[in-house]
Amino acid sequence: MQQGLQTIDVMLDEIMYASTVEAERQSPTLAGMIRYHMGWVDDDFAPIPAGTIDQGKRIRPRLALLTCRAVAGDDQPARHLAAAIELLHNFTLVHDDIQDESHYRRHRQTVWSIWGTAQAINTGDAMYAASRRTLLGMAAAGVAAPQVLAISDEFDRVAMEIVAGQVTDLEFEGGREASHDDYLGMIGMKTAAIVEFAAWAGATSGGADSDVADTLGRFGRSLGLGFQIRDDILGIWGTQAETGKPAADDIRRRKQSLPVILLREAVAGDDRESLESIFRKPEIDETDVERMLALLDAYQIRQTSEAHVTHHHDRAARLLDDASRHCRPEPVAELRSLVDALALRTY
Amino acid sequence: MQQGLQTIDVMLDEIMYASTVEAERQSPTLAGMIRYHMGWVDDDFAPIPAGTIDQGKRIRPRLALLTCRAVAGDDQPARHLAAAIELLHNFTLVHDDIQDESHYRRHRQTVWSIWGTAQAINTGDAMYAASRRTLLGMAAAGVAAPQVLAISDEFDRVAMEIVAGQVTDLEFEGGREASHDDYLGMIGMKTAAIVEFAAWAGATSGGADSDVADTLGRFGRSLGLGFQIRDDILGIWGTQAETGKPAADDIRRRKQSLPVILLREAVAGDDRESLESIFRKPEIDETDVERMLALLDAYQIRQTSEAHVTHHHDRAARLLDDASRHCRPEPVAELRSLVDALALRTY
Repeated sequence: MQQGLQTIDVMLDEIMYASTVEAERQSPTLAGMIRYHMGWVDDDFAPIPAGTIDQGKRIRPRLALLTCRAVAGDDQPARHLAAAIELLHNFTLVHDDIQDESHYRRHRQTVWSIWGTAQAINTGDAMYAASRRTLLGMAAAGVAAPQVLAISDEFDRVAMEIVAGQVTDLEFEGGREASHDDYLGMIGMKTAAIVEFAAWAGATSGGADSDVADTLGRFGRSLGLGFQIRDDILGIWGTQAETGKPAADDIRRRKQSLPVILLREAVAGDDRESLESIFRKPEIDETDVERMLALLDAYQIRQTSEAHVTHHHDRAARLLDDASRHCRPEPVAELRSLVDALALRTY
Repeated sequence: MQQGLQTIDVMLDEIMYASTVEAERQSPTLAGMIRYHMGWVDDDFAPIPAGTIDQGKRIRPRLALLTCRAVAGDDQPARHLAAAIELLHNFTLVHDDIQDESHYRRHRQTVWSIWGTAQAINTGDAMYAASRRTLLGMAAAGVAAPQVLAISDEFDRVAMEIVAGQVTDLEFEGGREASHDDYLGMIGMKTAAIVEFAAWAGATSGGADSDVADTLGRFGRSLGLGFQIRDDILGIWGTQAETGKPAADDIRRRKQSLPVILLREAVAGDDRESLESIFRKPEIDETDVERMLALLDAYQIRQTSEAHVTHHHDRAARLLDDASRHCRPEPVAELRSLVDALALRTY
C-alpha cells in the first residue's frame, strides 16, 4: 500500500511538473515559484529529493484515480484529470495564503511571504493555467473530445464555485454573521465542490453511467463536508505538531468555523455576554483564547462537532455502498479505507 | 460604423454577462465585483445604463471577430471566443491593478481599492474561470469539439504567457535592469501574445487554413507590439484627460518602459550620471520627473519611440496584405482601419 501511494505520487508529480516546463522558458522565476509551492525545489529553486517534503494529503487526485479504477479497472484515463485537480487545488492554496496572511503551509514559508503578494498572485494564476492545460492532456490519453469538453466545463464551474466560497468565507471573517446554513453553504462551495468533482469526473473519465458517476459525486461531496469540519476541529484543538499551525490558530484568527458557530448558537445567560464581549474586541489576546476554549469545553462543542463529522462520513459510506454494485471491489475497498482514515485523521 | 461597434459591444456584453449569472447565485458579492469591473454596475451593484461608461477599447475581441469574418464571411463561430478573450484580458487587469497599486482604471476606482486586495484576487480568479466557460460556448455555437480543444489549449498557453510577462515586468520594476531585448521579450508575452491569439483563433474558428491563421496571428503580434509601445509613449507624454492617469505616471512609478530603456542606452557623460543618480534614489520627486522629461527631450526619445511604433504597424500592414489574398475584402478593410487607428491613437 505504501509503495502504491509513492508510485501514485511520482506519477502525479511527473504530470504536474511537465506543466511547468514551458513556463520555465518564459520566466524561470515563475516556474521556480510554482515548483517551490509544489515542494519540488527550495527557495533558491534548487531541487529537493522526492519524498523528503510534505506535499499535502492529495486526497482529491487519489479520489479521482480510485473512482476511475472502480468503474474501469484502470486509472489511465484519469491521470491527467487527477494531476489537474491537484494543481487547481494548489492554485487556490497559493491565493488563500495571501488572503489569510498565512506565513506557513505544510511546515514551509508561503510563496507570498518569500516573493511578495504581487508575485504570489502571478504564481496562483499560472497554476490555474497549468491545471487547465494538464486537464486537456486527457484527450491525448484517449478520452473522447466531447467527454473532455464536458469534464472541462465542469472543472471551471467548480473553480468558480471555490472562489465564490472563498469570497463568502472572507465576508464571514470580515464580520458578516454566519448561520449554520450559511456556513454549510460556504464549505459546500469552498471545499466540498472540488472533492465532489474529483469523484464524479474520475468515474466519468472511466466511462461510468451518469447515475453511478452522480452517486460517486455525492459520495465525494459528503466526504468533503466531513473533511472540512474535521479541519475546523483541528484548527482549534489540533496541536502544532499535527497541523503545522499554532494551536487554537482559528480562534486567534477569529475564523467563523463550525465550532464557533455552534457555540454562538448554544450559549445562554452570562456566557452569551462573555462570548459577545470577546467578539466585539478589535484584537483577541491569549486570555480571550483561553476563555473561548473554556466556553467550547463547557458546551461540549468538540463532541457536537465530532458528531457532524460522523454524520457526513456515515452518509459518504452509504453512498459508496450504493455505487459499489456497479464497481470493482478492490478500488471500492480502498475508497472505504480512505473514508475511515479521513474520519479519524489528526493531521 | 459607429452603429456597428455598438451592436458588437451589446453582443459581447450579453455573452460576458451570462457567464456571471451562475456566480450570482453562489455569491452576489462576487458577481457584483465582476460586473463592477466590467462597467455594468456601480459600486452598490446597481445597473449602469449601457454605453454610458468607458469599457476599454476592446481591440482583442474585435480582432477575433474580424479575422473570423475575413475568412468565413460571418463572425458567428468567433463570438464566444471574442467574449472569452475580453474576459481573460480583464481578469489580468484586475490582478495588475492590485500588483501596480493602481487606484484608477478607465476613470473609475479599481476593484482592490474598493473591496480590498483579497476580494480583488477572488474577482480576477473568477473572471478567468468565467472566460474558460465562455470559451467552451464555441462548441454549442457549432465549432467542432477537436477544434475547440485546440483553441482551448492555446488559450491557456497564452494565459500562462501573459502571467510570465507580468512576472518579468515586476522583476524589472523591482530593479532588475532590462535590456532592449529583455523588454521586447516581456511585452511580447504580456501584451502581444493575447493579440496574436485573438487574430489566430478568430481565423481558426472561421475554418482558416493553418498558414493563413498563422499569418494573421503574426499580424496580431506586430499590432500588439506597436500597441504596447504606443501605451508606453502615452504613459509618459499622454495627458490625464487622454489616459485617465496622471501625466508622466510611468516615470513616477519608475516603470522600465521602452522610452526609459532607450534613454538609458543613449545617454552619455554628465547626463548619464544625472540619470543614474535619479535611478539610485529611493523615491522620485517632481524635480526628478522634470529632469527625466528634459533628458528624454534632449535625446529625442519620443521620436525614436514613435519610429518603433511605426515599424511594428508597418509590419502588421504587410502581414495583413499577405493574408488578404485568402480573405474577404470588407473585413480586411476594417482590419486596415484598425491598424491605422492604433498607430495614431492618443488614448
